[in-house]
Amino acid sequence: MKMISGGVCAAKGYKANGVHCGIRKNRTKRDLSLVVSDVKAAAAAVYTLNLVKGAPLTVTKNHLADGYAQAIICNSGNANTCNANGIEIAEMMSELVEKATGISADDVVVASTGVIGQPLDIAPIAGGMEKLYAGLSYEGNAAAGEGIMTTDTYMKEVAVEFELSGKVCRLGGMAKGSGMIHPNMATMLVFLTTDAAISPKMLQKALSGDIQTSFNMLSVDGDTSTNDMVTVLANGMAGNEMITEENADFNTFMLALNTVTVQLCRMIAGDGEGATKLLECKVDGAKDLQTAKTVAKSVICSSLLKAAMFGADANWGRVLCAIGYSGADVDVNKIDVSFKSAKGDILVCKDGTGVEFSEEKAKEILLEKEIEILIGLNSGDAKSCAWGCDLTYDYVKINGDYRT
Amino acid sequence: MKMISGGVCAAKGYKANGVHCGIRKNRTKRDLSLVVSDVKAAAAAVYTLNLVKGAPLTVTKNHLADGYAQAIICNSGNANTCNANGIEIAEMMSELVEKATGISADDVVVASTGVIGQPLDIAPIAGGMEKLYAGLSYEGNAAAGEGIMTTDTYMKEVAVEFELSGKVCRLGGMAKGSGMIHPNMATMLVFLTTDAAISPKMLQKALSGDIQTSFNMLSVDGDTSTNDMVTVLANGMAGNEMITEENADFNTFMLALNTVTVQLCRMIAGDGEGATKLLECKVDGAKDLQTAKTVAKSVICSSLLKAAMFGADANWGRVLCAIGYSGADVDVNKIDVSFKSAKGDILVCKDGTGVEFSEEKAKEILLEKEIEILIGLNSGDAKSCAWGCDLTYDYVKINGDYRT
Repeated sequence: MKMISGGVCAAKGYKANGVHCGIRKNRTKRDLSLVVSDVKAAAAAVYTLNLVKGAPLTVTKNHLADGYAQAIICNSGNANTCNANGIEIAEMMSELVEKATGISADDVVVASTGVIGQPLDIAPIAGGMEKLYAGLSYEGNAAAGEGIMTTDTYMKEVAVEFELSGKVCRLGGMAKGSGMIHPNMATMLVFLTTDAAISPKMLQKALSGDIQTSFNMLSVDGDTSTNDMVTVLANGMAGNEMITEENADFNTFMLALNTVTVQLCRMIAGDGEGATKLLECKVDGAKDLQTAKTVAKSVICSSLLKAAMFGADANWGRVLCAIGYSGADVDVNKIDVSFKSAKGDILVCKDGTGVEFSEEKAKEILLEKEIEILIGLNSGDAKSCAWGCDLTYDYVKINGDYRT
Repeated sequence: MKMISGGVCAAKGYKANGVHCGIRKNRTKRDLSLVVSDVKAAAAAVYTLNLVKGAPLTVTKNHLADGYAQAIICNSGNANTCNANGIEIAEMMSELVEKATGISADDVVVASTGVIGQPLDIAPIAGGMEKLYAGLSYEGNAAAGEGIMTTDTYMKEVAVEFELSGKVCRLGGMAKGSGMIHPNMATMLVFLTTDAAISPKMLQKALSGDIQTSFNMLSVDGDTSTNDMVTVLANGMAGNEMITEENADFNTFMLALNTVTVQLCRMIAGDGEGATKLLECKVDGAKDLQTAKTVAKSVICSSLLKAAMFGADANWGRVLCAIGYSGADVDVNKIDVSFKSAKGDILVCKDGTGVEFSEEKAKEILLEKEIEILIGLNSGDAKSCAWGCDLTYDYVKINGDYRT
């Protein structure tokens, strides 16, 4: 599994572009992105479990019902959610793609991200479509990646190269997501592309399985968005033997997928709204997987722990507290806790009780940008990992006045 | 139901005091409180559901097993939780009370609040006991209230006067709680006293019922503490006919209890760590009570909405979003949302869709200190209310470096 560049254009046969069309007032910020495959691709997606769903998700779900798609359009600056004409606008976006590219509107994935409850004007999208289409290129991944950003501070993309039945395949993707991120099935917007040949059914199986250990273990603020989804297109242009069952190639594909999604998770968590640190909570010794996941997520979601990490304060009592209210069935007298970073690691709690440790050393470890919170439950073999970020002044600032 | 002064000393026969004994370094902050009843009292309590429980809770539970108690001792500055000798220290606190007051150690409620995982030194408590006992008075409620404060910015007490079988009764209480507050059975520390005569069984029934609509509907930060409990002592000195069943007197008592607890909830929420605003989320038109409660709690707990309220931003999309991921079974196309304060009220969402409204008027309403978020589900008759506060820079500041 080799990391490569190119993001959503890393795989064979994918062009992309992103432009400023005018949804956002800031003319220097791209707000409309398009990704197209040279040929029709197998497609799979997972959607937010929020009962309030963005109109684009409903439209995309209809378009992917047959298991295939060929293009992705996504705007930022407006979520097209809770609007009376939302479905109509999302359909119009697909039709604009059909008009520009010749790809059937039924094969278009539509996504929107931004403020909820303000009608999305189709005019700037219609006006920008010509420029967007004209600029499509096999190196357009960065422009497309920028076009889907909202409060993100950096563009997020990653890609890998791997082999299936002797053929070199690639899988890459881009993501946006900084706030309103909390695992509950799909979260944020993630667009993945691959040139591997895989049936729609197996592609959906791979994606639905993957998110259980990737995006569903990610939380920035405990808020599950209305608009978030993860989609993957597989156009088969790598020429490998089509994956139609759970064989060795499927396992390799799953590994490639997980390599990309976990990396995107880390990027999204590290770029959480206002975040100064990436937090990884690694739980082992759990009696079963669900226990490990419940504990890891509860710790990564604790506002108190997140604030302590911002202050580089080794306040492990908050880790114990978050485990205690997680609902997981654990023996609190067996819990060990350590903090770890590039500066080393330090044990702060053993068998549920505090141990003496150097506050200086702990501070040095916690001042780093990437912190691991290691929890040993000492009650079995299951393990899990969750990603999050610290809670900072800037999170409050960004969200105290998002709309203006 | 008449509001009166006196807090935990409002009812007949309760003395209280609070002193600085040296658990905290700050010599101007009282850190040890004592409340005693002139006679043995029926006692009831509810405890945190956190699996990690403070040692004082275990000791208190044992002491209340017979349904009676006569004194309460509580220190701030150290939670006596996750310490190897925690139970021993909590028992020693009861024994110190017995030595000073002559009240059996078995009739002492013990509570601690503060940092988790640092051994609690008994020496300052032993050293301060003489002064604490000597200063007990029927007007000592304020000193006791101050002694249990941690990051609270003001002392919280309330009391009411009511009649039972022709006798004037009083019920009052004090509370501490500012961070690590999230409803899951008992939360924070609340000590209630009454001179009403009520059996231990009915007292527990009253308290367990009450918290479902009071403290369990309160959240500051989503973190359920390890040490929190609500206790009530009823010494019968009002001379009313003993309440032993669910009769009219019991209902009056419940009303008095709820009047006090709801007021304490509002005080705790309004004094949430770093809070600048009290938020009340009132849900009506729910198909059942559980739906109403789930919706109200989800909205009051949303970090994004809390930050928007800090910024006085009428970002109602975040209300819809929080309803959508609450898990409650609601029809999103029937939801109405309004914001209300002393400056008036404004409808911002009707039938799940945004309506045009004056941003200026909304801003004026949201700049107030007490904000109501009114949600109409239009699907039934059940209603509920939850209390919380905004998310501010100061919450991050307070919790970024709590221990130092």
